[in-house]
Amino acid sequence: MTVATLDDSVRLVSDERSGEHAVLILDRRIFPERTEWVRAETPLEVAEAIRAMVTQSSGPLYAAYAGLELAALQARGLAVDAARASMAAAGHALATARPTNGHPREAVDLVLHGIQAATTTAELVDRAIAAVREGLDEYHARSRRLAQHAVALLPDGATILTHCWMDSYLIELVGAANEAGRHYDWVATETRPYLQGARLTAHTLRELGQNVTLITDGMGAAALAPGSSLGPIDALVTAADRVSLDGSIANKVGTLGLAIAANAFEVPFYALVQTPDATLASGADIVIEDRDPAEVLSTLGTRTASGLVTDAWYPAFDVTPPRFVTRIVTDRGDFAPDSIADYFAGERS
Amino acid sequence: MTVATLDDSVRLVSDERSGEHAVLILDRRIFPERTEWVRAETPLEVAEAIRAMVTQSSGPLYAAYAGLELAALQARGLAVDAARASMAAAGHALATARPTNGHPREAVDLVLHGIQAATTTAELVDRAIAAVREGLDEYHARSRRLAQHAVALLPDGATILTHCWMDSYLIELVGAANEAGRHYDWVATETRPYLQGARLTAHTLRELGQNVTLITDGMGAAALAPGSSLGPIDALVTAADRVSLDGSIANKVGTLGLAIAANAFEVPFYALVQTPDATLASGADIVIEDRDPAEVLSTLGTRTASGLVTDAWYPAFDVTPPRFVTRIVTDRGDFAPDSIADYFAGERS
Repeated sequence: MTVATLDDSVRLVSDERSGEHAVLILDRRIFPERTEWVRAETPLEVAEAIRAMVTQSSGPLYAAYAGLELAALQARGLAVDAARASMAAAGHALATARPTNGHPREAVDLVLHGIQAATTTAELVDRAIAAVREGLDEYHARSRRLAQHAVALLPDGATILTHCWMDSYLIELVGAANEAGRHYDWVATETRPYLQGARLTAHTLRELGQNVTLITDGMGAAALAPGSSLGPIDALVTAADRVSLDGSIANKVGTLGLAIAANAFEVPFYALVQTPDATLASGADIVIEDRDPAEVLSTLGTRTASGLVTDAWYPAFDVTPPRFVTRIVTDRGDFAPDSIADYFAGERS
Repeated sequence: MTVATLDDSVRLVSDERSGEHAVLILDRRIFPERTEWVRAETPLEVAEAIRAMVTQSSGPLYAAYAGLELAALQARGLAVDAARASMAAAGHALATARPTNGHPREAVDLVLHGIQAATTTAELVDRAIAAVREGLDEYHARSRRLAQHAVALLPDGATILTHCWMDSYLIELVGAANEAGRHYDWVATETRPYLQGARLTAHTLRELGQNVTLITDGMGAAALAPGSSLGPIDALVTAADRVSLDGSIANKVGTLGLAIAANAFEVPFYALVQTPDATLASGADIVIEDRDPAEVLSTLGTRTASGLVTDAWYPAFDVTPPRFVTRIVTDRGDFAPDSIADYFAGERS
């Protein structure tokens, strides 16, 4: 089991004798220290696993697709209207599991749209499963195109600072660099409180044969500053969970501070997202998820703050205004933040 | 035992029967989870404890004074020249234990200067002990004056973001605020890798009856940004381990990123130091201590990064250029960074 082969982090399993199905989700809250799977036997349990951060970054998308496929398989014995209602209920739970990560909603929209014309339950199930396959294939293809556009901005030999866990974007970026004959060195922030950088990003980069240097979240500005003993950083590259039409970037909390420091030291910041969110006019419209502050008081389940401390703050994301973003890299190429709405220009014409 | 009563964190103990002396240093690497003391039986062992980060912030100053007093007591049986040479050797080890924190050097300079005129060993020992007492009293008095100047900049009701562990400056600042009838709310970064913020700063602030909210090191910019759900931050306040004559600030790594973010969002940054370092013309002259990168791979002794990761970077400090500093607060009042050299104006006239 590796995280590099990403579809393997979410699996739909079936018991051939009983006909029962379940979704297994790699528990990235503890991976790679331990490899354990969370078993979800209903779409609601999949949604709960997404909410509980069992999986992150692209993971909620994969889990949402698996939850929708599970819903379709479990709807086989229902009348078509009941099957459709059941799919809608599953979709609602999956789409709203986390407020800032927009991926599950995209999966739900695609699959619910795909079953609209179905007139029988069998047709509905077939169409749902086909839509899941199509959505996953499309997601990977778009990640690959995005990665190729990113590599075009990143010269051979570049040292790249990244934050949190870019998941499929990271893996495709390394793949696209290899195809282009470009080699990068990586600096990864550890990304407290869940340590996605120290565990998932650094682990995956090592699996992919890359050089990676781990830093704490407070060291980013020192790494970006001229004369840093880490050597020059050529670009800050992160994913973006949501991008609004004014070019604001919502991504894992900590991105904002790195972007401001990169801007101050004239290091370009490239934010990677397949597509901006046409429903969000500005960064102020992005809903930021507040998670359990108790996570800040502990590290991987062990209390690390003084026992006297009771108050903490844990916004899962922050919003970087467009003035601190150099280019937004999408599956349709890279855009200046103030012209990211042009992404949709071809669709309107 | 509390950290609020700071002199108690370093103790000189004597065995009345054997006449042997030793220095006990509270091990702040594990406090407050456990209260344990490192016992140093020679000045060199005190220096080693400083180097190993048993104590930080003001702690190395206290430890250096204790080490000098220990050296004086252990020199009692020597001829005066040998006693003087022994004091000089102890002073050298203590002054050079850590390259960026300049406090031990100040203690050493004061005590070695104090014993210059001694003509007998007894006189030398008495003068050394008197210089230690004088130095500690002076340090506390100057911290109090500095804290009063800082409170003058911080209005009643202010929310203050701080980083790492300001030690006596923090305690005196709360004391000076109480005297002035001002109340502050605190936000503390956890300060990886040693978690001084989560353990020492937040703990001390709670002991002092203050409200404190803990955040991870990546959350500072999000806290400083307009509209933050944490509520507005009115000032960033940190200590400075060294201040050069161009107004550059060396402090715990992470300070730079917070200072840049505060500047971007027009939140004032006040850096607290008793005195700038007249030997340092600019920030480029400040030697930054590189510590064992393995610390970044672990948290309080437990491996927290993926086992595949081998490379990390751990500069203990970073240097904030003057353009990101609002005022430097000293025991002689507050200065704009570009006029910090005026601190010495009274001495020259």
